Amino acid sequence: MSPVSPKSLSPADRAPIRVAMLGCGTVGSEVARLLTEQAGELAARAGAPVELVGIAVRRPDKHPELPAELLTDDAAALVARDDVDVVVELVGGIDPVRSWLLTALNAGKSVVTANKALLAEYSAELFEASDASGADLYFEAAVAGAIPLLRPLRESLAGDRITRVMGIVNGTTNYILSAMDATGAGYAETLDEASRLGYAEADPTADVDGYDAASKAAILASLAFHSRVTAKDVHREGIADVTASDLAAARTLGRTVKLLAICERVTADDGTESVSARVHPVMIPRSHQLAGVGGAFNAVYVEADAAGELMFYGQGAGGAPTASAVLGDLVAVARNQVLGGRGPRESAHAALPVRPMGQTPTRYHVSLDVADRAGVLAQVAQAFAAHGVSIAAVRQRDANDTASLVVVTHLAPDAALQSTVDEIAKLDVVHDVVSVMRVEGEDA
Amino acid sequence: MSPVSPKSLSPADRAPIRVAMLGCGTVGSEVARLLTEQAGELAARAGAPVELVGIAVRRPDKHPELPAELLTDDAAALVARDDVDVVVELVGGIDPVRSWLLTALNAGKSVVTANKALLAEYSAELFEASDASGADLYFEAAVAGAIPLLRPLRESLAGDRITRVMGIVNGTTNYILSAMDATGAGYAETLDEASRLGYAEADPTADVDGYDAASKAAILASLAFHSRVTAKDVHREGIADVTASDLAAARTLGRTVKLLAICERVTADDGTESVSARVHPVMIPRSHQLAGVGGAFNAVYVEADAAGELMFYGQGAGGAPTASAVLGDLVAVARNQVLGGRGPRESAHAALPVRPMGQTPTRYHVSLDVADRAGVLAQVAQAFAAHGVSIAAVRQRDANDTASLVVVTHLAPDAALQSTVDEIAKLDVVHDVVSVMRVEGEDA
Repeated sequence: MSPVSPKSLSPADRAPIRVAMLGCGTVGSEVARLLTEQAGELAARAGAPVELVGIAVRRPDKHPELPAELLTDDAAALVARDDVDVVVELVGGIDPVRSWLLTALNAGKSVVTANKALLAEYSAELFEASDASGADLYFEAAVAGAIPLLRPLRESLAGDRITRVMGIVNGTTNYILSAMDATGAGYAETLDEASRLGYAEADPTADVDGYDAASKAAILASLAFHSRVTAKDVHREGIADVTASDLAAARTLGRTVKLLAICERVTADDGTESVSARVHPVMIPRSHQLAGVGGAFNAVYVEADAAGELMFYGQGAGGAPTASAVLGDLVAVARNQVLGGRGPRESAHAALPVRPMGQTPTRYHVSLDVADRAGVLAQVAQAFAAHGVSIAAVRQRDANDTASLVVVTHLAPDAALQSTVDEIAKLDVVHDVVSVMRVEGEDA
Repeated sequence: MSPVSPKSLSPADRAPIRVAMLGCGTVGSEVARLLTEQAGELAARAGAPVELVGIAVRRPDKHPELPAELLTDDAAALVARDDVDVVVELVGGIDPVRSWLLTALNAGKSVVTANKALLAEYSAELFEASDASGADLYFEAAVAGAIPLLRPLRESLAGDRITRVMGIVNGTTNYILSAMDATGAGYAETLDEASRLGYAEADPTADVDGYDAASKAAILASLAFHSRVTAKDVHREGIADVTASDLAAARTLGRTVKLLAICERVTADDGTESVSARVHPVMIPRSHQLAGVGGAFNAVYVEADAAGELMFYGQGAGGAPTASAVLGDLVAVARNQVLGGRGPRESAHAALPVRPMGQTPTRYHVSLDVADRAGVLAQVAQAFAAHGVSIAAVRQRDANDTASLVVVTHLAPDAALQSTVDEIAKLDVVHDVVSVMRVEGEDA
């Protein structure tokens, strides 16, 4: 008699895929819940039962809701256990998580992680370990929460040439800017309100200063352009300097302000390509689809040569949405273990260099209070021309002896635009630089 | 000396993945172009060169742009060739394509296809052949063109419970309805104009009667609910009966009309689940994101228990966009062949039954011209009540001796709503049924 072929086993009869989870906060508790409640469904989809065999938390006694026999405070020991096939990491931060995940990958244990900060800095190292042992490394939850974004970039668009990824990838800053737009209030006041309502962390630095978005931009740029881009390569400006005047100026022009992560393939005149990755506030037309993305939602545009323009929209954070992305990855890992096969590996063959921000082409909106007399426009226009910056639109409006002057430029190197603004600010005829902001999207 | 491990080979040195393409129209010529122009990139991403070894077309002499040595008019012979690893099918229709693809899959050759009609009817048969031989079956291009939608449904959301998929999946009908909305013109006139401009086929039946969208709905429902849903299971109404009055009525209510494919998980009072899949014109609020999707674009909403609401947007048709989806699948097939492993298989374990349209809960908008006298509203309201249909909103407006009466209902079984409308149409006090249409989305 021939032995039963493994293929003929039903999913429930197969050896389970054994999961160790590191961290059990908002996301982890949802992952644990879904692994239990959806056990039958997950087994059917993964091809084998997916079983939680251990959970490492800092204080096991603080988790009476979890089975005591699963809990440990020793993450390193849990990762090293022989009966662990997959490590799900939801702790966050670089150390000591980095060493835990390297240990897992080196031992051939696949990793599912939502750790954007770690990936944005050490993905090359993690991918090397994954490659050497054949273990999978999945991280859909690290960018844009529940939105399936990384798998489409890595797999669906694998045959296309992506030229641009641009989107709202941080819910806290989007909430604050939406609220400032709606109420006309200033930044500090709105941040306080957001903290009070739980939309901003007690220490909001990672969000409002753009660190979180910059990590995500690094991950997106790496995947989109098959190159290694780390968080340090990303030009980063947060929203702390966005004023009520900026939003008012935007409103006058039929625009609003969003904090965007922008990753572009830039082709120089000689045909050489580079990557630009940046995070900063941007004025976009109110008619732009990103303008309508409110509250804590995320939305990301992807442009590719053949596919054209694509948009992905959904919840960018939160326990259940992030858990959905983690479980999708977990099912993929389990399927690979049951059926054989590998998840996507690092794809950095293009190895494009990162373009410094100063050389990245951008467009500026500049709103000025100027003296209301002849020759002012000529002086301002001359400053732009002197830096080789071409003007796309000008709007002037007089009020008593001050006039307001709004200039929107064509594309120019960011450094040239910055120098122009610095020079204009020093002109005698310029009373006040009301607002300076980069613009994206068609003019209204 | 140990032999060189296959892993240490560079992609360019590996044995190529040999592709036979069936059909070479708008999409095929883009696929052929990209396979040539992006050969180096594709090899790097796939892990081996991807090489076009044959193209079957009806009339080889009509394709002077393609290398003559690749062309054949014998698709069956091409599929059977020993030097073919993957078959890309872009012919469309059921026969004889079905037998070609079964031959390929039975011989262990993976298939990438954009053939929605075939998949909507025979996917079970194709998956069985794929399963038996271990060949892959990919079909991202069959629904929503360039938009990565099927891979997220099959893989990213594999750990979640999808409750609803709803979207615009046919560009021709969306173009016509957008134009009717913008111009106020009637259906026949707008269709003529669309044909003249190339937005509608010479024979537009498959689009305007909803067959194309129904095939896509069957594919989406099967994947979303892990059940077998065929095109025959999909309730289908096209746009030929949508009138300028319907669009005018919608406009009065701050709504517009779209042809939507709607796939829902319906839970009965006793907890049993079923699947509803339908394609019909729908009134949606202008503030709804789908209302802003114009021209030939597609957009699909997905709702899942943990992920919440997701939206995918992009070009639903056209040579290059569809080719992008085909190439993504081709890279996936090639990677599986190089690294070992399998693409997703059929997932029909839930085996939910399909709910007949009559039992599917929907909401109706009914716009009537009625006699302007006392008691009319009571009679109309009584007709709804008699069928157990609860009214959500009523708007009445008088003009001379006729009044216009608009009723929007709460959810009720579609058959009950249909009977109510039939009965109302027969009332003496009802002069004309101006517009009857299902509604989705929040009330304006």
